[in-house]
Amino acid sequence: MTPAEARALFPVLGRLAYLNAGTFGPIAQATADAVAAQLAVELEQGRFGKDYFERMLGLRTEARAALGSLVGASAEQVSLTSSTTDGCNIVLAGLDLGPEDEIVTTREEHFGLLGAVHASGARVVVADADAEEIVAAVTPKTRLLALSQVLWTTGRVLPVRELREHTGVPVLVDGAQSVGAIPVAAEGLDFLTISGQKWLCGPDATGALVVAEPDRLRVARPSYFSQTAYEETGSFEPAAGAARFDPGWIATASLAGLVTALEILPEWRYERAVEQTARCRELLAPLVEVVPGGATLVAFRAENPPTLVARLFAAGVIVRDLPRTDLVRVSCGWWTSDEDLARLAAEL
Amino acid sequence: MTPAEARALFPVLGRLAYLNAGTFGPIAQATADAVAAQLAVELEQGRFGKDYFERMLGLRTEARAALGSLVGASAEQVSLTSSTTDGCNIVLAGLDLGPEDEIVTTREEHFGLLGAVHASGARVVVADADAEEIVAAVTPKTRLLALSQVLWTTGRVLPVRELREHTGVPVLVDGAQSVGAIPVAAEGLDFLTISGQKWLCGPDATGALVVAEPDRLRVARPSYFSQTAYEETGSFEPAAGAARFDPGWIATASLAGLVTALEILPEWRYERAVEQTARCRELLAPLVEVVPGGATLVAFRAENPPTLVARLFAAGVIVRDLPRTDLVRVSCGWWTSDEDLARLAAEL
Repeated sequence: MTPAEARALFPVLGRLAYLNAGTFGPIAQATADAVAAQLAVELEQGRFGKDYFERMLGLRTEARAALGSLVGASAEQVSLTSSTTDGCNIVLAGLDLGPEDEIVTTREEHFGLLGAVHASGARVVVADADAEEIVAAVTPKTRLLALSQVLWTTGRVLPVRELREHTGVPVLVDGAQSVGAIPVAAEGLDFLTISGQKWLCGPDATGALVVAEPDRLRVARPSYFSQTAYEETGSFEPAAGAARFDPGWIATASLAGLVTALEILPEWRYERAVEQTARCRELLAPLVEVVPGGATLVAFRAENPPTLVARLFAAGVIVRDLPRTDLVRVSCGWWTSDEDLARLAAEL
Repeated sequence: MTPAEARALFPVLGRLAYLNAGTFGPIAQATADAVAAQLAVELEQGRFGKDYFERMLGLRTEARAALGSLVGASAEQVSLTSSTTDGCNIVLAGLDLGPEDEIVTTREEHFGLLGAVHASGARVVVADADAEEIVAAVTPKTRLLALSQVLWTTGRVLPVRELREHTGVPVLVDGAQSVGAIPVAAEGLDFLTISGQKWLCGPDATGALVVAEPDRLRVARPSYFSQTAYEETGSFEPAAGAARFDPGWIATASLAGLVTALEILPEWRYERAVEQTARCRELLAPLVEVVPGGATLVAFRAENPPTLVARLFAAGVIVRDLPRTDLVRVSCGWWTSDEDLARLAAEL
């Protein structure tokens, strides 16, 4: 598959310079077809019976394996969630932290992570998004580092594995802007969240949580999938591996779409994405104040980000502004063409 | 709309005697069309921009209002969840119970409720599914009654409001088998879960939690929808009303389907459902041992339930067996025809 062929998979790219995968990736025709095919079966044949449930369970197994293999984890380490927020909440609820415990996070996290951190009841220590500052914030009371691997603001990459090794503190890595965008290895990370709908171009409300050692986290939010047997008090035999953390039913059609989206990812995706991001930085540097960053995001300053985003939108160039900052963010993917970037540059 | 016209809304009913809404309701053509239309927009136009987000937020508002009005609650009391399990977990996590607290539940609950009850860490007291037994199990340490309004096993109806009034203990009502099946009033109930995919015939992974007094439950599982403003520690200003409990993104296409499913419910649905359930009981009584029950479920004993269910399935009659019992369960809806019931009876 060539880059041009890959690009042709996505109808929306025929019309727009779509540079917003950090929010939602484009959807491939094949992915939409897989969703529609499952919905048609459910409409005509109903949602019941051995075939239906085996199909659903088979899709869960496939999704688990495919998402795991993306980050070098086994299927047994993957829980299927509906978002990275979901994954963060599962981890924080299961750790049973209290006011005597501390969590170190950074000043540039998304609420999807921060909300769960706050709700845990632990003391939250906020460090600058910098390896040295994070290490300096760790005390003997620190029970968790809660960090994005790629900051959603600027794309800057935090050395999450090194921080884990250096501090010896368990780490929850929010992979919302990393998994699918850059090569990610779950090895050495205690908890890693994955978004299905961003860089993996899957249906909305899909995602995963990779748990290195499922036996060591309490199942704080059980669903029918969490157990293999239960008592009348609700006490239960947990399902094997991270499936015990599965928080509930995911629409079968969405699972079908996700599995298809994962099948069509080209081998060369990371090289191409990094190449197009570099090109984007290069093109924008003479035009606007690009802020330091990394991965596949490019952020630049604007006087009035919402106004600029709206103007670009009207010109068929899709980017986003970042609330509470003066930044506009551009997401580059393996599907991004030179022409997309030229259209953006021309409008600036 | 006549019963025959209502029935014609659902393609699957043209083929099958579909008697399993207690698991999944049938899907109407209009509901499937609404899902497909939203997916087509996302495929062709992308998932971004003011129109897209306003559409999504508008659907959330519509769904909240429609689900609330089903049970006489205001939209402000409705949180959008992906299942009744989800709702139970939100409540139990937010109550912050511990080993000194007690929860009274019954011997006939689904794991969707029981799992959350167990995970709360409170002492679980299991009573027979009977009003007097439930009252007798209450002690000064009881912090919650966790009960189905309609038992998923036999359809028996528990007097949940009266139990709340009589004991003075807050009640979490699992409405999985009640809302949409029989008239339900949220008034007087502290927490009520709703399934979108069963008696309301909505897409899978949709549902709601009705919270009488949103200010009195802690937001234990925050999502982006939970807040209107937040600090860098994750401390946040909660969204107004029960929207603060919204656990995350629901697929926009699923919301579109749910809103459509709620629009097509006929006025006469409860009368018709109860009428067809009575007819079912009457038809089956001479043929099998029907167990006492109520609402819109009919359970009867079988020597080998899975075998019988498979035989009926092969004959186009869709019912289910209940694990760990000798029961087969028949779900009757407002769409159930005399012929459906005759087909079931003929096979027995």
